[in-house]
Amino acid sequence: MRQLFQEIRRNPLLWLLAFVPALFAVQRMKPEAHTLLFGLSVLAIVPLAALLSHATESVAVKTGDAVGGLLNATLGNLTELVIALAALRAGEYTLVKASIAGAIVTNSLFMLGASFLLGGLRHHVQEYNRVNARLQAGLLFLATVALLVPSAVGGADGASKSAFVTSLSLGLAVLLIVAYGLGLWFTLGTHPEIFASAAHGEEEEEAPWPLGLALVTLAGVTLLVALVSEVFVESVQEAALDLGMSQAFVGFIVVALVGAAAEMASAFAGARKNRLDLSVGIALGSASQIALFVAPVLVLASYVLGPTPMSLQFWPGAVVMMLIATMTAALVTNSGKSAWFIGVLVLTVYLVFAMTLYLLPQSGT
Amino acid sequence: MRQLFQEIRRNPLLWLLAFVPALFAVQRMKPEAHTLLFGLSVLAIVPLAALLSHATESVAVKTGDAVGGLLNATLGNLTELVIALAALRAGEYTLVKASIAGAIVTNSLFMLGASFLLGGLRHHVQEYNRVNARLQAGLLFLATVALLVPSAVGGADGASKSAFVTSLSLGLAVLLIVAYGLGLWFTLGTHPEIFASAAHGEEEEEAPWPLGLALVTLAGVTLLVALVSEVFVESVQEAALDLGMSQAFVGFIVVALVGAAAEMASAFAGARKNRLDLSVGIALGSASQIALFVAPVLVLASYVLGPTPMSLQFWPGAVVMMLIATMTAALVTNSGKSAWFIGVLVLTVYLVFAMTLYLLPQSGT
Amino acid sequence: MRQLFQEIRRNPLLWLLAFVPALFAVQRMKPEAHTLLFGLSVLAIVPLAALLSHATESVAVKTGDAVGGLLNATLGNLTELVIALAALRAGEYTLVKASIAGAIVTNSLFMLGASFLLGGLRHHVQEYNRVNARLQAGLLFLATVALLVPSAVGGADGASKSAFVTSLSLGLAVLLIVAYGLGLWFTLGTHPEIFASAAHGEEEEEAPWPLGLALVTLAGVTLLVALVSEVFVESVQEAALDLGMSQAFVGFIVVALVGAAAEMASAFAGARKNRLDLSVGIALGSASQIALFVAPVLVLASYVLGPTPMSLQFWPGAVVMMLIATMTAALVTNSGKSAWFIGVLVLTVYLVFAMTLYLLPQSGT
Repeated sequence: MRQLFQEIRRNPLLWLLAFVPALFAVQRMKPEAHTLLFGLSVLAIVPLAALLSHATESVAVKTGDAVGGLLNATLGNLTELVIALAALRAGEYTLVKASIAGAIVTNSLFMLGASFLLGGLRHHVQEYNRVNARLQAGLLFLATVALLVPSAVGGADGASKSAFVTSLSLGLAVLLIVAYGLGLWFTLGTHPEIFASAAHGEEEEEAPWPLGLALVTLAGVTLLVALVSEVFVESVQEAALDLGMSQAFVGFIVVALVGAAAEMASAFAGARKNRLDLSVGIALGSASQIALFVAPVLVLASYVLGPTPMSLQFWPGAVVMMLIATMTAALVTNSGKSAWFIGVLVLTVYLVFAMTLYLLPQSGT
Repeated sequence: MRQLFQEIRRNPLLWLLAFVPALFAVQRMKPEAHTLLFGLSVLAIVPLAALLSHATESVAVKTGDAVGGLLNATLGNLTELVIALAALRAGEYTLVKASIAGAIVTNSLFMLGASFLLGGLRHHVQEYNRVNARLQAGLLFLATVALLVPSAVGGADGASKSAFVTSLSLGLAVLLIVAYGLGLWFTLGTHPEIFASAAHGEEEEEAPWPLGLALVTLAGVTLLVALVSEVFVESVQEAALDLGMSQAFVGFIVVALVGAAAEMASAFAGARKNRLDLSVGIALGSASQIALFVAPVLVLASYVLGPTPMSLQFWPGAVVMMLIATMTAALVTNSGKSAWFIGVLVLTVYLVFAMTLYLLPQSGT
Repeated sequence: MRQLFQEIRRNPLLWLLAFVPALFAVQRMKPEAHTLLFGLSVLAIVPLAALLSHATESVAVKTGDAVGGLLNATLGNLTELVIALAALRAGEYTLVKASIAGAIVTNSLFMLGASFLLGGLRHHVQEYNRVNARLQAGLLFLATVALLVPSAVGGADGASKSAFVTSLSLGLAVLLIVAYGLGLWFTLGTHPEIFASAAHGEEEEEAPWPLGLALVTLAGVTLLVALVSEVFVESVQEAALDLGMSQAFVGFIVVALVGAAAEMASAFAGARKNRLDLSVGIALGSASQIALFVAPVLVLASYVLGPTPMSLQFWPGAVVMMLIATMTAALVTNSGKSAWFIGVLVLTVYLVFAMTLYLLPQSGT
């Protein structure tokens, strides 16, 4: 417990934890203050995500390579998953899909571009292992393409018959989870050397917690994220109206940035230490995980938790953005070299997307 | 003749030749048994395609490098061409287009992915010449893109005026055949060294037949394929209804897999022998040949054999699939390295396409 | 002045300058001869563009690296800009957009493909620096993608509400110009070595003019281009009707080829001297400049010069063509190797586009 407090004192990001009780207090006293609740829930999720990330890594270190890798791989995007599950239970499928699409785009454009920019501001030209980067960008592209087939075919066909798209989405979800399982076997079982260096680098940065503390933190913080997410999902619609933001913007940009805050901290730190392999691995790996694991799990969960089955048919603009994001990631990591301006360009594409969603008429969602 | 029988005894695939007389017997006795005729014709085409492939190679070896290369290049997809010509004569343009699109997708996803998977199950990491692979993937991408322009522009424009699309398709067919002719001059005349190693490798696997036997086999088997294709095209529509398969699925998946069976055998054998250069060359080269040669020949043939000129405007879903397939092929062959999971991912994309077409409502074709 | 005449005597392209006075004479005497005026204005722009290009380079050499680079970068596409501004003032937004799209496609397909073909006819295989080429192709892809977001999202959404697209285009124009400015700082300030060799190579080919002559030529010829462009824009619509060409074809193909004539001369000369780095740099750099600088400047200028604000929403067919062109450029420059057939294939894609636009029904613009 002392270690938990030490960690909190050392890491200014965790001071935001004060917003967690503040949120619950406001929720009890002023349940109608939607915009305030929205803002507080966003601020409260950031430190919880950081704690979750640290707890997951600590458990992973203690339980050894194979189990640890499995935990890291499945719980790495736990925050996004818990938020999306809260939205799923409330039947807010537009928000769920926007946050899936947004997480892929944010990881592969914002996290990658900001890593290149931050690294490039300190180092003239940065080199990284381009074979690994290409492999990861290839996985991300294939994962995204598979995820987008129902939208592409359903949309292109004009006849987006819901029964067809729903059963296609279910079959696809099963296929993706099988592919994800095989991917875990690949990275942890048969070819661990490909991702070894990146994972090793991450561990040495912070001392891991003891297993007991880590497990308790993991359970407790996941519960807190779930509770905060409830408030977030309840307040987001009214708050978006008040703030003049479309729901697409909130799901795509705000949820994705908040959910990925902890991973971004690691990726940016790696970039500034001239270890772009680490940054590229986190950014592309996290995006692949959303496509191959989080998205299909949400489809399957919708059969249990949601009012109706959720399909994987996305709004056409989101399809275009996901495709562009993964192709951009593939192109810029192709050379194995980076300089600050590459980061600026990748961030420009992200800003264009954000601006588009911000300006989009509300009904366009 | 003895050699032909030896070959048949040696190669279990050729035992399927028994289905050829069976097919014609059933056709005479039960012309209404559409589903049975469909199944038998599929089973009969597989060994005929294998014989055709071996005969073509034997003639190619005997006639020397330049003429042989020309023969291999033009007759390599003879099975697909003969099936498509039978469908063309029957006016089944949907089936013709589905089989063109399916051949490109099957060659560049299924054949490539299965080669990576089969090779990866035996070898930890496989390396191949990435400069050649990139060149071939580039050719395939450009060929596919050129083929898709009428669909992209016609479809995007909304005004798919048939006169415009028909004359555009005719002009395009002429351009593609000219490009194909120049490509032959390139690979056989000015730059034979680029494709030399792959071609050489293929020859040493099996002893070539004498020229006389090869020519007779080539002529006789082509005739048999034509006769079997007639039955296939006649029975496919009723059989697809019986089996609950859409016509798009049959053309895209079944015809393509059947037509490419012989080439797949070579590609998979190469992969298991750790000669991925050969597998990649067959898969990408065969797909390029469909786009640059088979498709335009079918357009031109439709003016002579078909009821009306056939355009190159594809169903939008097929356009998306062809583009994704060639981009996937370009991405995964970019690194010049392969492991089994790459194959799994490429096959996953193919399975997603197959599932989509299987579930597609019939009218969606 | 003597140097100017020497230059004119030495360079047969400049003999076309005789068409400039001829154009103004015809305009005064036969203002209704639209097709003649159109042809003369096309012929008159070519030598003016060549003079403009030489004058810009001469000023650049005299004013030193930083200012000179800035001048080259901003005035390199001055001809295209002046023609487009004339069309903008006349409210011919279809022509403006077609010439933006056409300049990107022509530079990245025709200029690149013809360089590969011309170089390949003289040299068996040409190698060039693939890291630089990939960086430039990446910049071009990102710039094009950013430019296309309003079309992709607006079009995909179906609800192309003009207020949304107009404000998005304005914001995007500002973002692109900021990115362009940062790009200049990158290439001239922090990382000049990346583009150094190509720029250096260009200078040594021709002796620069004295600063005074260069500045006077720059000002005078810009004025002449502006006057000729006025005639061109006035006559193009009637002439296109007479010649049976759609306005899309004229803007996309004719304006783009004419405007880029001077750069093409440099790129082709580089290719024949086996310096493909230079050719690739000119082709991709010029295309990027259109997307990052010329297009947003035209949007901003439309608020001052045009009847209404111009958006960046392109006709869907043009979007497809721009995306295919930049992806093709990225793919073929990926290997760092070239042979004549690569050039043929890239030119084939360009010819397919040109044929499509030529055959397109007039209303399709």
